[in-house]
Amino acid sequence: MPADAMRGVLSPVVTPFDAELRPDTAAWLAHCRWLLSQECGLAIFGTNSEANSLAVAERRSLLEAAFEAGLDPARMMPGTASSAFPETVELTKAAVAGGAAGVLMLPPFYYKNVSDDGLFAYYSEVIQRVGDARLRVYLYHIPPVAQVPISLPLIERLLKAYPGTVAGIKDSSGDWENTRAMIVGFDDFAVFAGSEAFLLDTMRAGGAGCISATANINPAAIHDVYANWQAADADQRQAAITDFRKSVAAFPMIPALKATIGLSTGERGWERVRPPLTPLSDADLASLSQMLDGRGIAMRGRRDAA
Amino acid sequence: MPADAMRGVLSPVVTPFDAELRPDTAAWLAHCRWLLSQECGLAIFGTNSEANSLAVAERRSLLEAAFEAGLDPARMMPGTASSAFPETVELTKAAVAGGAAGVLMLPPFYYKNVSDDGLFAYYSEVIQRVGDARLRVYLYHIPPVAQVPISLPLIERLLKAYPGTVAGIKDSSGDWENTRAMIVGFDDFAVFAGSEAFLLDTMRAGGAGCISATANINPAAIHDVYANWQAADADQRQAAITDFRKSVAAFPMIPALKATIGLSTGERGWERVRPPLTPLSDADLASLSQMLDGRGIAMRGRRDAA
Repeated sequence: MPADAMRGVLSPVVTPFDAELRPDTAAWLAHCRWLLSQECGLAIFGTNSEANSLAVAERRSLLEAAFEAGLDPARMMPGTASSAFPETVELTKAAVAGGAAGVLMLPPFYYKNVSDDGLFAYYSEVIQRVGDARLRVYLYHIPPVAQVPISLPLIERLLKAYPGTVAGIKDSSGDWENTRAMIVGFDDFAVFAGSEAFLLDTMRAGGAGCISATANINPAAIHDVYANWQAADADQRQAAITDFRKSVAAFPMIPALKATIGLSTGERGWERVRPPLTPLSDADLASLSQMLDGRGIAMRGRRDAA
Repeated sequence: MPADAMRGVLSPVVTPFDAELRPDTAAWLAHCRWLLSQECGLAIFGTNSEANSLAVAERRSLLEAAFEAGLDPARMMPGTASSAFPETVELTKAAVAGGAAGVLMLPPFYYKNVSDDGLFAYYSEVIQRVGDARLRVYLYHIPPVAQVPISLPLIERLLKAYPGTVAGIKDSSGDWENTRAMIVGFDDFAVFAGSEAFLLDTMRAGGAGCISATANINPAAIHDVYANWQAADADQRQAAITDFRKSVAAFPMIPALKATIGLSTGERGWERVRPPLTPLSDADLASLSQMLDGRGIAMRGRRDAA
């Protein structure tokens, strides 16, 4: 793994909206601060952040608000990709200028069945145009959503062409064998599992940590597994966070995360999502609330941080 | 079909780039003008235009250049969609302000398996926020690429909620039965086939025309089928344009279209594409050139329009 690689547990920070569906910057900063207080890094503008439902100008405005608010850039890995490389360059430059320790970069995801040559050319355009030695790119492999995979041969080419700059990957394939192949296949490459269900396996294989949706609402317990992966009871701790994730994943993930924060803070505006996503149904909301009560998941201190 | 519906043959206008991969506005306007001279409408910013590889600011700048250049807005159907609805609203407002007769609107295409409720909410946000009686929305159904389909029930809901505004659809499913169902299933709805291979069938069933990639390089012959669909030899004319399309589709479509324009105009910069697309290989380019020579496809007058 690169000496300066990011590590640990990061959350693809969910994005709150006001009644006009504009990003609610104050509520967003409060959630970011609470996550940092739980040892959780900030993978803002991920899939669970509804990043591709945000205008580039909105992402940029939130990013600058985070820097201005003094959130620790060493714990920030903003998603900066657009299918249009000039927009990716713009957002990546802004992230690097603010000191973000890394950026998380989807492949361009409109055209399907594109070649590795084309994806290599895309990442090359961005890296060369940003042209900054401080840049650290974490690739984002999420074939179930993007439908454009990042293959092992592509990683090899990128590492060879941009050593030190291409720093790692988030693997949201849900395929542990693929994650393992990424960990053992490359030196100087920090691999994050896309779900805490694979966190202990990832740490044992030599990975960097995880970037997981449910870290938005269960960060302390997930960090506990990360910090104590060599402890005697690590498997038990892992089983507990996996079990909680499964309980949340019974609901549509993004609305469920936002509803959980709404229930925990009393700020019900958190339930809003941008289309094409839809809020939880009343029945799902009641069921989620009951599940959370039964488990005693309190999002400790989250109400005060609101 | 709505009385003010667009009709005929439109081209998803390919977008030329300069050596820095910036849009080449002058070359683009020349191609638009030539297409209009061939009775071909301008579906700028479609899939074949690499629209999702263009920054929103670049699309807006080209759109305004087209209006300033005096291209006939009655023949323009710009693609204005982004997965982020504020960007769709921005581009759609600009198109309506310039007098574009319609806009072509992809669904938000990052999240997969979204509900019709979510897609209905997306289109509703855009239509209501644009809030202009002049707006005419043509939906864009292209499941092989967007992977997010526009279902018949969704069309029905949108037509009921926004009669007069939701004006039609481009069906790039490649499934004639689906196109036919869209034509016969709805009144006041203008259906364009996504390929000229279905043009005659579309006209016979009561559709509006076609919006097709190869209209970039073969517009006159395609328009000829549109204008003479009731002629005795219509099937023969259809067979000829279908056959030409198949010859082009043997190559990667977008690079082949751009290379054909490059060969016809002598402006080889037309061969450039933005990643993740890649230019034709030398072998493909030679093979394409030979095919075009053999068919005597001259893109009549295109060199002069360069």
